[in-house]
Amino acid sequence: MGILVHKYGGTSVGTTEKIKRIAKRVIAEKEKGNDMVVVVSAMGKTTDHLVEMSKEIAINPNKREMDLILSTGEQVSIALLSMAFQEFGYDAIALTGFQAGIKTYGPHTKNKILDIDDEKIKNYLKEGKVVVVAGFQGVNENGDITTLGRGGSDTTAVAIAAKLGCPCHIYTDVDGIYSVDPRLYKEAKKLDVISYEEMMEMASLGAGVMEPRAIEIGCKYNIPIYVASSINDVGGTYIKEYDEKMEANIVTGLSVCDDILMVTVSHILYNLDHVATLFEKLAIENVNVDMISQTAPVDGYINVSFTAPKDDLFVIEKVMGDLEGRVEISIEDEITKISVVGIGMRNQSGVSGRLFRILADNGISFRQVTTSEISISYTIDKKDKEKAVRALSNELNL
Amino acid sequence: MGILVHKYGGTSVGTTEKIKRIAKRVIAEKEKGNDMVVVVSAMGKTTDHLVEMSKEIAINPNKREMDLILSTGEQVSIALLSMAFQEFGYDAIALTGFQAGIKTYGPHTKNKILDIDDEKIKNYLKEGKVVVVAGFQGVNENGDITTLGRGGSDTTAVAIAAKLGCPCHIYTDVDGIYSVDPRLYKEAKKLDVISYEEMMEMASLGAGVMEPRAIEIGCKYNIPIYVASSINDVGGTYIKEYDEKMEANIVTGLSVCDDILMVTVSHILYNLDHVATLFEKLAIENVNVDMISQTAPVDGYINVSFTAPKDDLFVIEKVMGDLEGRVEISIEDEITKISVVGIGMRNQSGVSGRLFRILADNGISFRQVTTSEISISYTIDKKDKEKAVRALSNELNL
Repeated sequence: MGILVHKYGGTSVGTTEKIKRIAKRVIAEKEKGNDMVVVVSAMGKTTDHLVEMSKEIAINPNKREMDLILSTGEQVSIALLSMAFQEFGYDAIALTGFQAGIKTYGPHTKNKILDIDDEKIKNYLKEGKVVVVAGFQGVNENGDITTLGRGGSDTTAVAIAAKLGCPCHIYTDVDGIYSVDPRLYKEAKKLDVISYEEMMEMASLGAGVMEPRAIEIGCKYNIPIYVASSINDVGGTYIKEYDEKMEANIVTGLSVCDDILMVTVSHILYNLDHVATLFEKLAIENVNVDMISQTAPVDGYINVSFTAPKDDLFVIEKVMGDLEGRVEISIEDEITKISVVGIGMRNQSGVSGRLFRILADNGISFRQVTTSEISISYTIDKKDKEKAVRALSNELNL
Repeated sequence: MGILVHKYGGTSVGTTEKIKRIAKRVIAEKEKGNDMVVVVSAMGKTTDHLVEMSKEIAINPNKREMDLILSTGEQVSIALLSMAFQEFGYDAIALTGFQAGIKTYGPHTKNKILDIDDEKIKNYLKEGKVVVVAGFQGVNENGDITTLGRGGSDTTAVAIAAKLGCPCHIYTDVDGIYSVDPRLYKEAKKLDVISYEEMMEMASLGAGVMEPRAIEIGCKYNIPIYVASSINDVGGTYIKEYDEKMEANIVTGLSVCDDILMVTVSHILYNLDHVATLFEKLAIENVNVDMISQTAPVDGYINVSFTAPKDDLFVIEKVMGDLEGRVEISIEDEITKISVVGIGMRNQSGVSGRLFRILADNGISFRQVTTSEISISYTIDKKDKEKAVRALSNELNL
């Protein structure tokens, strides 16, 4: 027995009843002899309400102030959860990001964890307390409250586990990692285990269950992550180091993402500097550019397409408006990215050929294709999404 | 022109519309050349909602966690108000209690300000920013978030003004200090000016407009406090150092308080130690004991009565339950305290005689009477309240 980090997301702490239920789950683990750290998100709809009020005040609210207001969400949940432990007769203490020593850096609303000064957490654990930590938030070197952006609470949980050198359980509203999103493909199989690398591809490719940043930290410090349901007691999925047995399947999963835009910039004068400037400007604005494809120059001009999160539309339009010259820009949002992921692809050729064949046989045309060592991704028209998911899942036995 | 502190209470920041209105008022002062610090409370009903959720979790929630959850209320208001300034084109920055350097000590939910490390506030003012500070909260030496209890935001505002050596304007839902609460006596006169000492008596005696702690700080550092309406532009009341002119009226105001209990402990064996133990125990539990009266011993036994805030009923019952011996205890809550305050009473005799006469002529009997240098207080049956207020206000020309 040792230290164990549990993380519960927004829907699991949606009501005071649910918060009490979480306290009981954690107490059961503590009774087994574990020292417990619990990371929680804001209660269900709280964040939406705070964003709504901010938008009533300002069209584009200052991001430092956004962080300040959003961080109150977790502060409320940790206080309530800590009270619940105390009510059940267990000593507990609630810590905000800055109290838990979570030091961050970067632009507001998208901070990254720099380090965790875990002295307080360790001391409180030694005193026998359940330590309840606010996910998603930290403090920068200026003493400003920061937030970690999407999936920030997972990142907080895994980072604390990494610092304490203990396992991390992520309890969520799905009961594990599936080969394909079960909402898209009912017959999808739940995976008992998946490697960090595959999960990172799945996550960064939009599987949505966990953010890649959290997995990356788990991978770097070799912290086993267990993803399971916060409600049911059915077995979840272990995310851990790659292991020989996993290689049996060449393809582990399918990842599907709709929350993207595809931007095509055409008629760019062929000049390395022009393309570099474009992506530099996007980087300065913290736009998370994903798939990039570029055609060979024709008559001295090139076309570039890239995908990016829909949330960044406003910023992308601004950057595109600043581009010099007579380039033409089109932004499409009826786009789906579909990715096939498997660590076995590293040593197996022929997967791409098989995929192109499946798409062709089903009459699905694609706009872009990119590959990594363990994945192949396509952008397709959103109308073809269901057909593509079904065809690929069936053929690849996912 | 110099620095000016404005404070706006909970009802003045109740909606995003109202927050925008406050921003405009503050901007008007800034445009006159003032460097502005704005202290705000939590939005109207927020605190009630947070208390309600806490009560759903625990009957008697841990006070450290209560402070943590309650402090989110002001954190939301400061972020929104800061966004409003920015939206109107003014540079602004929102600071929580700990960010503003407000160091506190004492028991949770009832902390006191130890000191303010005003470096950040001063630096941001130098940069031309409107500095928006969360009222009611601070941080203790352990790094825990604390709250200042009733009237805490006023205390924050006046303490910051004291530290910066500048005036403090308290904008509230009443348009100044009245000789008598206008809800109790319609003909009550608004005072243009009142001395710190009188206001402290009025406040601690339950006038409700401002807490005595805030006035005490104003008095100690000689900071002029202006109390006025946050909505109307009618003149308010200055609270300032005593000045010869003020002495014209012997009696300045009447203060009425219903939120009290009267506890009578009878049949105490006459022994100095017994009475001391009783009040020591109440002090340990932070009960704010107010009027104390004790009868001379009869047959070796004495009776003691005291008043205390109704909020402390739970704690008082606990302490009383712990008392040893065969004492009898009665707790009455249909009690009103009514106090006559005036700095002129210091040099004028005969006021008490006049007051006893007014009460007698109107058939109002009282339970306790206590006096200070500038006030006389009575506890009466709540049913006699209206009659007493009317009689005293009329006779004393308030």
